[in-house]
Amino acid sequence: MSESKKEKKTAKGRVDQLNEQLLEAQFELRKSGKGPVFLLIGGDDHVGKAEIIHTFYAWLDNRFLNARAFTLPRGLEEQMPRFWRYCRTLPPNGEIGFYLGSWYHQPLREFCTGQISEQQFSEQMQDILRFEQLLVHEGASVLKVWLEYDKSKPVHEDASSSTTVAMREWNDLSPAQFEHVHGAAQRMIELTSTEGAPWTNVCSNDAEQRDLQIGQLMLDAIRAQLSEEKQSTLPHSWIPSTRELLDELDYTPAMDKDEYKVQLDYYQNFLRQLVRHPDFSGRSLMLVFEGTDAAGKGGTIRRITQCLDPRFLRVHGTRAPTDEERRQPYLMRFWRHIPAPGNIVVFDRSYYGRVLVERVEGFCSAAQWQRAYGEINDFEHQLQQSGILVIKFWLAITQEEQLDRFEAREESPLKRYKLTDEDWRNRKQWSAYREAVHDMLEFTDTDESPWHLISSEDKRHGRIQALKIVCESLQHALK
Amino acid sequence: MSESKKEKKTAKGRVDQLNEQLLEAQFELRKSGKGPVFLLIGGDDHVGKAEIIHTFYAWLDNRFLNARAFTLPRGLEEQMPRFWRYCRTLPPNGEIGFYLGSWYHQPLREFCTGQISEQQFSEQMQDILRFEQLLVHEGASVLKVWLEYDKSKPVHEDASSSTTVAMREWNDLSPAQFEHVHGAAQRMIELTSTEGAPWTNVCSNDAEQRDLQIGQLMLDAIRAQLSEEKQSTLPHSWIPSTRELLDELDYTPAMDKDEYKVQLDYYQNFLRQLVRHPDFSGRSLMLVFEGTDAAGKGGTIRRITQCLDPRFLRVHGTRAPTDEERRQPYLMRFWRHIPAPGNIVVFDRSYYGRVLVERVEGFCSAAQWQRAYGEINDFEHQLQQSGILVIKFWLAITQEEQLDRFEAREESPLKRYKLTDEDWRNRKQWSAYREAVHDMLEFTDTDESPWHLISSEDKRHGRIQALKIVCESLQHALK
Repeated sequence: MSESKKEKKTAKGRVDQLNEQLLEAQFELRKSGKGPVFLLIGGDDHVGKAEIIHTFYAWLDNRFLNARAFTLPRGLEEQMPRFWRYCRTLPPNGEIGFYLGSWYHQPLREFCTGQISEQQFSEQMQDILRFEQLLVHEGASVLKVWLEYDKSKPVHEDASSSTTVAMREWNDLSPAQFEHVHGAAQRMIELTSTEGAPWTNVCSNDAEQRDLQIGQLMLDAIRAQLSEEKQSTLPHSWIPSTRELLDELDYTPAMDKDEYKVQLDYYQNFLRQLVRHPDFSGRSLMLVFEGTDAAGKGGTIRRITQCLDPRFLRVHGTRAPTDEERRQPYLMRFWRHIPAPGNIVVFDRSYYGRVLVERVEGFCSAAQWQRAYGEINDFEHQLQQSGILVIKFWLAITQEEQLDRFEAREESPLKRYKLTDEDWRNRKQWSAYREAVHDMLEFTDTDESPWHLISSEDKRHGRIQALKIVCESLQHALK
Repeated sequence: MSESKKEKKTAKGRVDQLNEQLLEAQFELRKSGKGPVFLLIGGDDHVGKAEIIHTFYAWLDNRFLNARAFTLPRGLEEQMPRFWRYCRTLPPNGEIGFYLGSWYHQPLREFCTGQISEQQFSEQMQDILRFEQLLVHEGASVLKVWLEYDKSKPVHEDASSSTTVAMREWNDLSPAQFEHVHGAAQRMIELTSTEGAPWTNVCSNDAEQRDLQIGQLMLDAIRAQLSEEKQSTLPHSWIPSTRELLDELDYTPAMDKDEYKVQLDYYQNFLRQLVRHPDFSGRSLMLVFEGTDAAGKGGTIRRITQCLDPRFLRVHGTRAPTDEERRQPYLMRFWRHIPAPGNIVVFDRSYYGRVLVERVEGFCSAAQWQRAYGEINDFEHQLQQSGILVIKFWLAITQEEQLDRFEAREESPLKRYKLTDEDWRNRKQWSAYREAVHDMLEFTDTDESPWHLISSEDKRHGRIQALKIVCESLQHALK
C-alpha cells in the first residue's frame, strides 16, 4: 500500500470514528432535552461555509438539525429589531442549529463598507454579547468559527473547488472593501470571544481537515452540554428594592359616572385621532398590562382596543407556555408577537411573568428571575430603538378591594369564570407578590420604558388614567 | 316603571341570559377540544363590524378568543397563495375565531371595482367553498354574517354613532363602485351558503338587537359542535386504484461509479445555473420526497441541496405533529412551510403522510384519508397558481433490497440510528403500504403536479434521475 493510500485510509478511519461519536452525542443530547448547540459559521467566500453544513447533514440524524441562513434583512425584516428574525426561528432544546449569515454578518459588512463607524461596530458587538449571554444562560451552547485560507500553505483541491460553493456573502464588495474583511473579523473575534461563546479560527486549506476540526468542536460542545450541570450562577448578590411604591400609592381617587363618560369620550376620540396620524404608519405600539388579580386589566384593555382598527391590532393573553415554547429561551415567544410598523399589540399579562408568577411560584430558578430584569430591559431597549413604543402598566388595588371583587365574582354567573382556585392561592401569597412587584417596578423602570403605576381601586379612575397615558405617550412619540 | 324602562330591563335580562349561556358553552367547547367556531363578519362600513367583536370580548373569556382582521394583502402576502395568510394564523380547536376582512373581502372588492369578471368571481367563490369545506370536515364550524342597515326602518342612535366605528373597508371606493357592494354581496351569499357554513343577513339598525342575534347564532353553533358527533361521511364510495405502478416499475437500471460522477457533476452544475436564473427570484420550488423506508431519500436530497444557496433553502423533515399542530386541520402545518419567492423548500416526507402512514396505521379515519386526495390536489393547485413549482418523487425499492439495506444498517455503527423498530413494523405492512402508494400515485397525479416514480434499487441511478427531473422541470418552468 502506498503512503498516500495509507494516509487516506487513516483519515477515513478518523472521520468514521468522529462520525460515530457525533451520532451518539446527538442522540444523547436529544434524549437529555438540554439546551441546543448552535454553530455560527462565518468567513470568506469559497472557503466552504455551506459545505460544512452538508458534511454534518451527511454525518448526523437530519431530523434534528436546523440550518438557518440569512441574507441581509429584506422587507419587514428591515423595519423590525435586528434580533427579531433570529429569535423567531430559534432551534429548540435538544437539537443542533447551524447559522450562516448569523447576527454577526450585517454589522461586519457595514463596518467593512464604512456604513458604520468603529464605535458603532463596537456597540453592536456589545449588543450581540448580551444576546448570546442570554442564550447561554438559558442553556444553549454557542460555537463560532471563522474560516479563512492560510495563503502561506498550499490549498487542497477539494477545498478550492469553486463548483462546490453555493453561497457568496461578499462578492458584491469592492476589492478595497474586501481587504477590510480580514481585519474587521479579527476585531470582531477579539470583542466577542467569551467563555460561553468562543470563536475559533479554522483553516480551510484542506476540506477534510476543516470538517474534522469543526466536527471535533461540535462533539466537545455537545459532550460539555451533557456532562455539566449548567451553573446557575446568580448575576450579583441580590439586593431587593427598598422602595414601597404600592404602599405609597394613593388609592382614594374616584370618578363619578357622568365625569367618566365625558372623559372616556374625550380620550377615546383622542386615541382614534392619534393612530390615524400619518407618522404612526412607521411606528408601532406595544402596551403591557400587568396588575393584581381582579384589578380590571380586561376592562381597561377593552376601553382602549374599542378605539383601534382591529386589522392593525392583536391582543395577546399570556398563558402558561406550550410544550414547544418550553423548549426555547423564555423571552423568545414574546419576540414573536412584537408589533410590525403601523400595528398595535396589547399584552394582557406578559414576559414580566418571569419576575412575578414564575418567581413567586418557583417555576424558574433564582438565577433566572434575577437575570430577567436585565434581559427584559435589553429586550425593551431593542424594541424602542427600532421605533416600537412600549408602554407598561401596573394596575393596583388594595387587599380589601380584591376580596370584595372576588366575592362579587363568586356570586355573579357572568363573572364566576374569572375566578379560579389559583386566584385564591395567589391571594395567600400577597406579600410575596408585593415584594416581586416592587422589585419589578424598580429594576425595569427605564427612561425609555417607564412603569405606570395606577390605582384601579375605582375602576373608572383606573381606566381613564390608562387611556390618558396611552394618548399622551403616543402624542409625544409622534411629535 | 315606564314602558321604555321596562323594555330596557327586559332587554338587559335577555342579554345577561345569553351571556351566561355563551360563557357556559365556551367553557364546554374548550373542555371538549372539539373544532373551533369561526365567525366571519362582513358588511358595509359603519354597521358595527368591529363592535360585535368588542361585545364578544366583553361577554366571553378573552383568553380563548382570537380576532383576525385582514387588510388587502401587502408585501409578501401579495406573492403568496391567497389562503396562506389565513392558514398560518388559524385559531386552534376548542377556541373561537372572529374574522374581519376574511377570505371573502378581497374577491368581493375586486368584483365591485371591476378588477375581476363575474366568471372569475364565481371561480374564487368555488375555491372558498372548497377551503371552507376542508375546515368543516376537519371539525370547524363556520358562521358567516353580512351586516347592513334596513333603510326603510329607523336607525337606533347607538348603532349609527360613527365614533364607535374603528374599521373602514370600503371608504376608498367611488360611490358608483360602492353601489355594487350590496348586489355583489348577495351574489356571494347565494354562491357560498352551505349547510356547513351558512350566511346570515343581519340588520344593524339596532346595535343591541344585532349583537343579540349574532350572539344567539354563536351559541347555537357552539352547542351544535358540542352535541353532534361530526358525521364522518365518506366522500364517495371508495374505488381503489387498479394500476399497479410499483410492480410495473423497472428496478434493473444501474449506473457505474464513473458514469455517476460525470452525470452528478453535470446535473449539479446545471441546477446551480438554473437557480441563479434571474426569473427564479420571482418563482419558487417545492420538492416533495416520499418513498419506501431505506430507499435513500436523505442521500438523494443531499445531492440536490449541495447545489443550493442555504440562505434560500429550507429542508423540512416531517415528523409526528406536535400538540399545537394537532389542534389544527392537518394541512395547516404544511401551509406554514411553503416557500416564498426565490426560495426552495424540500420536504423529507410530507403531507402525503395522511394517505400513507396515517391511513395504514389508522391514525386518521377512512373519511379523512379518502378526502385527503382532493384536499391535497387543491393545496398543490393553489401553490402552482401562485408560481410555486411543486415536484413530487416516490423513491421505490424492492422488498428484497430493503431487507439487505436494513441488515446492512444494523451492522453499521454509522447507520444504525437510521433503523428503528418502526421500520421493521412498517415492513410487515408492506402490502398495505403498496396499496396506499398505488392510490396516492393515481389520485394525486395531476397535470400540474405529476408524481415521479423512480427506482432507487441502485442508489446512483435513483439520485441522478431525481436531479435530472428537478433540472428539467425547473428549466421548463423558467422558459
